[in-house]
Amino acid sequence: MDARRYATLPDPFPMWRGGALHGGRIAYETWGTLNPARDNAILIFTGLSPPAHAASSEADSSPGWWEGMVGPGLALDTGRYFVICVNSLGSCFGSTGPASTDPATGKRYRLGFPDLSVEDIARGGHEVLRALGIERLDTVLGPSLGGMVVLAFAAMFPNSARRLVCISGTGAASPFAIALRSIQREIITTDPAWDQGNYSADAPPVVGQRLARKLGTITYRSAAEWAQRFGRDPIRADMASANAFASEFAVQGYLESLAAKFVSAFDANCYLYISRAMDRFDLNRHGDPIALLRRAQLESALVIGVQSDLLFSLPEQQKVADQLSAAGVRTRYSPLNCIEGHDAFLVDLKTFGAEIGGFLGGS
Amino acid sequence: MDARRYATLPDPFPMWRGGALHGGRIAYETWGTLNPARDNAILIFTGLSPPAHAASSEADSSPGWWEGMVGPGLALDTGRYFVICVNSLGSCFGSTGPASTDPATGKRYRLGFPDLSVEDIARGGHEVLRALGIERLDTVLGPSLGGMVVLAFAAMFPNSARRLVCISGTGAASPFAIALRSIQREIITTDPAWDQGNYSADAPPVVGQRLARKLGTITYRSAAEWAQRFGRDPIRADMASANAFASEFAVQGYLESLAAKFVSAFDANCYLYISRAMDRFDLNRHGDPIALLRRAQLESALVIGVQSDLLFSLPEQQKVADQLSAAGVRTRYSPLNCIEGHDAFLVDLKTFGAEIGGFLGGS
Repeated sequence: MDARRYATLPDPFPMWRGGALHGGRIAYETWGTLNPARDNAILIFTGLSPPAHAASSEADSSPGWWEGMVGPGLALDTGRYFVICVNSLGSCFGSTGPASTDPATGKRYRLGFPDLSVEDIARGGHEVLRALGIERLDTVLGPSLGGMVVLAFAAMFPNSARRLVCISGTGAASPFAIALRSIQREIITTDPAWDQGNYSADAPPVVGQRLARKLGTITYRSAAEWAQRFGRDPIRADMASANAFASEFAVQGYLESLAAKFVSAFDANCYLYISRAMDRFDLNRHGDPIALLRRAQLESALVIGVQSDLLFSLPEQQKVADQLSAAGVRTRYSPLNCIEGHDAFLVDLKTFGAEIGGFLGGS
Repeated sequence: MDARRYATLPDPFPMWRGGALHGGRIAYETWGTLNPARDNAILIFTGLSPPAHAASSEADSSPGWWEGMVGPGLALDTGRYFVICVNSLGSCFGSTGPASTDPATGKRYRLGFPDLSVEDIARGGHEVLRALGIERLDTVLGPSLGGMVVLAFAAMFPNSARRLVCISGTGAASPFAIALRSIQREIITTDPAWDQGNYSADAPPVVGQRLARKLGTITYRSAAEWAQRFGRDPIRADMASANAFASEFAVQGYLESLAAKFVSAFDANCYLYISRAMDRFDLNRHGDPIALLRRAQLESALVIGVQSDLLFSLPEQQKVADQLSAAGVRTRYSPLNCIEGHDAFLVDLKTFGAEIGGFLGGS
C-alpha cells in the first residue's frame, strides 16, 4: 500500500547554496478534496525524519506520523481542507536526496549531493503546489524543521499562503541546538562504517546512527516527562545484557528500541544533510524578517511553542510571533506548558489539536 | 609543584557493591589550619572530573577548579576553616581507580576494578578524616556528583559533620540524567579503540572520549547562556577544517577545545566507572531518607539548585531540602536563576560565593 504521488522538479533544479539537481522529484500525499477555486489547500512540511505519510488513508491504511490530527472532523479537517504533506527534499522516503541515484553517474549521490538548505526544502514544496495547480494555499504549516521551512517559504514565495502555522520552529537555529545536532552528526561521521559516506546499503553506520538517534530522542523530550514515565525503573529483563556498562534502567531500554527502529528506516547521509541544513538556516539571510513577512501577504498566523522544549526554546518562538505581528499579520502566539518537550506536537494531540483546529476553524 | 597528600585506605577496603581494594589510597589537598579542637574542617567532594586541587596554594600555585572560592576571606575562608578537598575514589588524579596498578597483577585494574559506588567515594573521604584525626567536620560540602556524595556521607557516617552543603546534587539520579550519561558512556565503549577497556596508555579511545565530553559540556550549560555568548557567530578561522560536515559555528569550536583538554587529562575507564556510579546512586537504598538524615545529627544545611540545570533539576533539590527539613535540620534552600546551567557553581562565583559564604559565616 502506497499513497505517495510524485511531483517532478524542474530540470535543472538550482539549489540555494549552489549546484543543481537533475531529474529530481518530491514525494507527497494528500487527504480530502481540492475545491474548484483551488483555495482550500493546507501544505504540511515535516520535521527532520518523517515521510509524507502524515495520516492513514484508503490508499495506505498504516498509521501516519500525525495520525489523529489529519482527517474528517479532526484539527486538519479533510472534510473542509485539501491537505498535502511533502517528504522533504534531501530525505529518503521518495523525494530526491543523497541516497537517490545521481543520473549523471548511475550511482547514489552520497556526499556528491549538492549542499542542502531549508530553502531548498521550501522550494520543493512549492513545486508540488505548481504540479497541483495551486497558486495560493489556505495555510502553510510545519512543526520543528517544518517550522523553519514555513518561514523560508513565506520569505521566498510572497502571496503563496493566506495563513501560516509555525509549530516549535525558529527563524534561526540556536547555538545550543547547533551543538546538540552537530554532535549527532559527528557521532555518525566518526563511526568507521560511515566511510566518508560510502557505506554499502547492507552495512550502514548503525553504531553511530543508533547513538545519534538516542541523543536526538533525549533532545526531543524532557526531564519532567521521563521522571513521571520511567522514574528509576530497571530495564525490562528481555532487554538486559551482560556487557560491561550494559543498560540498567528502563529509560535506556526505551532509547534503544526507538533507535533500532530509526536506524533501519533512515539513511545516514540524508540525516547528515538535513541536520546540517537546520543548523545553517537563518531567516535574516533573506533580509529584514519583518519586511519579508510583510511582503508574504499573510493574513494571519499561529505560532506554537512549548515551555519544556530544549531545542527550539520559547524565546525563539516569541520572536517569530513578534516579527509576524510587526509585519502586520494577525498573529496568535501560544506558549504551551506541555511536559513532552519538543515532541509535544506528536504526543499531546489534544492540546495541539485544539490550538490548530481552533485557528484553522476561524478565519 | 604538587600539593597533594595521600591517605592510605584500610587493606582490604571493602567496596559497597562487593569486592575489595588492596593498597588503595586517596589523594587530597588542604588549605588553612586545623585548629586545636580539630572542629573547623570543611571537606569538599568534587564533581565527576576535577582533581583535589580546588585552589592554588604555596605548594601548588596553579589555579584550582574552584579558584576564587577557597582562600583567605573567600567564601570558604581559609583564615577560619581548614579546607580539605579529596580526589574521588575511582578517579585518576592520585586516588586509586581503574587506571591504577592492581597489586595482585602488577598491571592496571581496567575493568577488573570492582564496581564503584557513590558510597565508596564517600567512604574514601571519611578515611581522609581518620588520617587527619578529625572526628566531626564543621561542614561537608559538594557540588554535582559531590552533592550526591555528601548525602551518602551523611547517611553512612552519623554525627560526622555539623553542617552540610549540597550544590546542584540529588538524592537519586533522574532518568533524564541517566539517559544523557549512559549515552556518553556508550559513545566511549563503541569506539573501537576502547577495546573493552584494554586500550594502551598511548592510544586511548580519543574519538569517543572527545565526543562524550562535548555532550557532557552541553548538559552542563544552558541554551540561554549560549544564545548570549555565541549566538550564531562563525567558528574561528584557525579552528575551521575542510572535512565533510566540518564545524561551522563558534559554539562548535568551543566544545572542541574543551573536549581536547579533557581527553588528554582523564582516563576513559575511570570516567565510565564514575559516570555509572552517578546513575546508580539512590539515597533510598540506605533506608528512609528522613530517618537517615535525622540520624546524621546535622545542625544545619544549605541546598543550592539552579533553574537552568538540565541534569540535576530544581525539583530534585527541593526534595533534598524538604527531606533535610523534615529530619529536623535547619535548612536553607536556594534556587538560583543563574543561566549557566549545572556548571553555574564553577562560573557564577559571585552568586555562589555569597550563598555559601553567607551560610558558612553564620552558625
